[in-house]
Amino acid sequence: MTEILLREDRGAVATLTLNRPEALNALSDAMLAALGDAFARLAEDRTVRVVILKGAGKAFCAGHDLREMQAARQSEDHGAAAFADLFARCAAVMQAIPALPQPVIAEVHGIATAAGCQLVASCDMAVAAEGTRFGVNGVNIGLFCSTPMVALTRVVPRKVAFEMLTTGEFIDAARAREVGLVNRIVPAADLSAETFRLASTVAGKLSTAVRIGKRAFYDQIGLGLGAAYVQTGAVMADNMLLRDTNEGICAFLEKRAPDWQA
Amino acid sequence: MTEILLREDRGAVATLTLNRPEALNALSDAMLAALGDAFARLAEDRTVRVVILKGAGKAFCAGHDLREMQAARQSEDHGAAAFADLFARCAAVMQAIPALPQPVIAEVHGIATAAGCQLVASCDMAVAAEGTRFGVNGVNIGLFCSTPMVALTRVVPRKVAFEMLTTGEFIDAARAREVGLVNRIVPAADLSAETFRLASTVAGKLSTAVRIGKRAFYDQIGLGLGAAYVQTGAVMADNMLLRDTNEGICAFLEKRAPDWQA
Amino acid sequence: MTEILLREDRGAVATLTLNRPEALNALSDAMLAALGDAFARLAEDRTVRVVILKGAGKAFCAGHDLREMQAARQSEDHGAAAFADLFARCAAVMQAIPALPQPVIAEVHGIATAAGCQLVASCDMAVAAEGTRFGVNGVNIGLFCSTPMVALTRVVPRKVAFEMLTTGEFIDAARAREVGLVNRIVPAADLSAETFRLASTVAGKLSTAVRIGKRAFYDQIGLGLGAAYVQTGAVMADNMLLRDTNEGICAFLEKRAPDWQA
Repeated sequence: MTEILLREDRGAVATLTLNRPEALNALSDAMLAALGDAFARLAEDRTVRVVILKGAGKAFCAGHDLREMQAARQSEDHGAAAFADLFARCAAVMQAIPALPQPVIAEVHGIATAAGCQLVASCDMAVAAEGTRFGVNGVNIGLFCSTPMVALTRVVPRKVAFEMLTTGEFIDAARAREVGLVNRIVPAADLSAETFRLASTVAGKLSTAVRIGKRAFYDQIGLGLGAAYVQTGAVMADNMLLRDTNEGICAFLEKRAPDWQA
Repeated sequence: MTEILLREDRGAVATLTLNRPEALNALSDAMLAALGDAFARLAEDRTVRVVILKGAGKAFCAGHDLREMQAARQSEDHGAAAFADLFARCAAVMQAIPALPQPVIAEVHGIATAAGCQLVASCDMAVAAEGTRFGVNGVNIGLFCSTPMVALTRVVPRKVAFEMLTTGEFIDAARAREVGLVNRIVPAADLSAETFRLASTVAGKLSTAVRIGKRAFYDQIGLGLGAAYVQTGAVMADNMLLRDTNEGICAFLEKRAPDWQA
Repeated sequence: MTEILLREDRGAVATLTLNRPEALNALSDAMLAALGDAFARLAEDRTVRVVILKGAGKAFCAGHDLREMQAARQSEDHGAAAFADLFARCAAVMQAIPALPQPVIAEVHGIATAAGCQLVASCDMAVAAEGTRFGVNGVNIGLFCSTPMVALTRVVPRKVAFEMLTTGEFIDAARAREVGLVNRIVPAADLSAETFRLASTVAGKLSTAVRIGKRAFYDQIGLGLGAAYVQTGAVMADNMLLRDTNEGICAFLEKRAPDWQA
């Protein structure tokens, strides 16, 4: 039996691979559960400093598993409870990404649609292969991408998101970078190498500082200016008191490499 | 007597035309009232799925009607009550656009300045002719565009908005698209055709889903991540229970066109 | 003894120059105090309409003074109180910029890193020389740029900020403009002239209107749409009642230059 979610660790970088290529890596109940479990384990795993999320086969992820969703209509309430539960479980997985201590990088190729595009938007960073297309196209089948919209509208300008949501049309990788949905575009042949290079760059930093910073990033982002400074000022003062930060600054001033323990 | 606001319906697309070309379609009291009435009627009109807003003559809209505003200074309070009332009425019209059930597309040419630029920013999407210029240039006459700023700062980056507001200088269509103020730029000769094509694309979607989605778009946009997911999760579950959404998904899985009733 | 912060007024434009070129204009305790004092004086100075902030020597500003920070570790609490105090003082200086009545323009060259990049992000506008590089690279020495992040995440898209913060890598001037961190890029030889030109443009507007507008800009930016319109509607009505605004509108309608008193 093939596992639907693969994990491979290389140094301090863990790569999760959505592995239902025959279904364009659709987010079935089993896939959502596997992702939730994987994130929960990674949250406790101090050996992992950066996570890459990618898809097997010809696409990153095409969103929810529509056949599975349709099956829920057989119940007495026509699926009402099942649908509410599904979107709650999916939202929990999406929110687990910014909540994870480690940065998560989406490695995107082919297409990222609906909840697949939401995954890209939810990741802290994204690298895309040239030719990748992004869409929140549920509207084409009468199901507006209301939950993907939550992640999308927090990373791209308002009018761009509205157009994608109501036309169901794709944007290409260049436009995705221009509007803030992805960080970097690389030739398809270099996608894994370049994503791993970015992951390794981040993994090479002091991991305690990165963890502190990622948490502070999302904690402060919705606050007013004054409140955000109160909170992050305390975070930086704590960061300064780390043994390794003292060592990092000393090493910099002495023009030598730091001897970090973390 | 010529009407100052024209409405023409073509299929499910209603086009409103600001029709005071001799005044660059300034937003006089009468024009604001006509827009408010038109939006109120459209909100109740189930035959209309998308609204286009454009201007007659050589410009989209040049903002408020300054002569009319100056006349209010004759009153005992030098216009204080009249000005407060004017900006409240104008703000109500601007807020009626995101509140409208149907998507509203600005079809922009010539110039869009001050409250005219605010109209563009307030629309859900915007298509601009090449050569169109955008400005919030009230500062040039000593009247800072404080209310246009509300719409502008919610669609473009902060420093871009600050520069436009304090210099009074125009940005061109290419920059407007780059910063998120408009969605698409087309040759002037194609403006109406291309805007109608975009409107038709959206009008071709399941209208109940688009209405659900537009409302959810603005409801969730200011919320924290968790609250936004709770709200939109419920919206998607409701969306799933629509007869036409069931049909849309079945049709997709069966590779046929949907037979929608709405 | 050389002053660490120079002020030069030219017409209604005051230029503050960070003057510790040998330390890349690091924000030492003395520099933060000097900046705080300068901003406090400018806030009361009605002759100044626009402020330019620049750096002497080969860079704009390289952030905090690390040697000075390290010295604080000698105290009994290993610097805990000193660090908390430092970040609070620095945050106060950063927040003094949007709070200042006059627009503040960063004139940036060389590098702007860590708290130096925060200064750029905190200014209302920024002009950069070609070749300037921007980074929030504290992570490289184990000190995540949590307070610079507050200013940065409010002007650039989320994923762009995350990448800069966790990789410590620079972005160039072109990318900085694309993402909203700077307004304009000019050849290095023209930097001072072009920044002064922008400042003069703003200084040439009615200063009372610019002051009203800048305050309203930051007051409304975090509010919901309805609340923002209530607030700015009142601001515009007040603006209309200024003698000089009446004159500005009259002059415009009569196609002559305004005779402003302010």
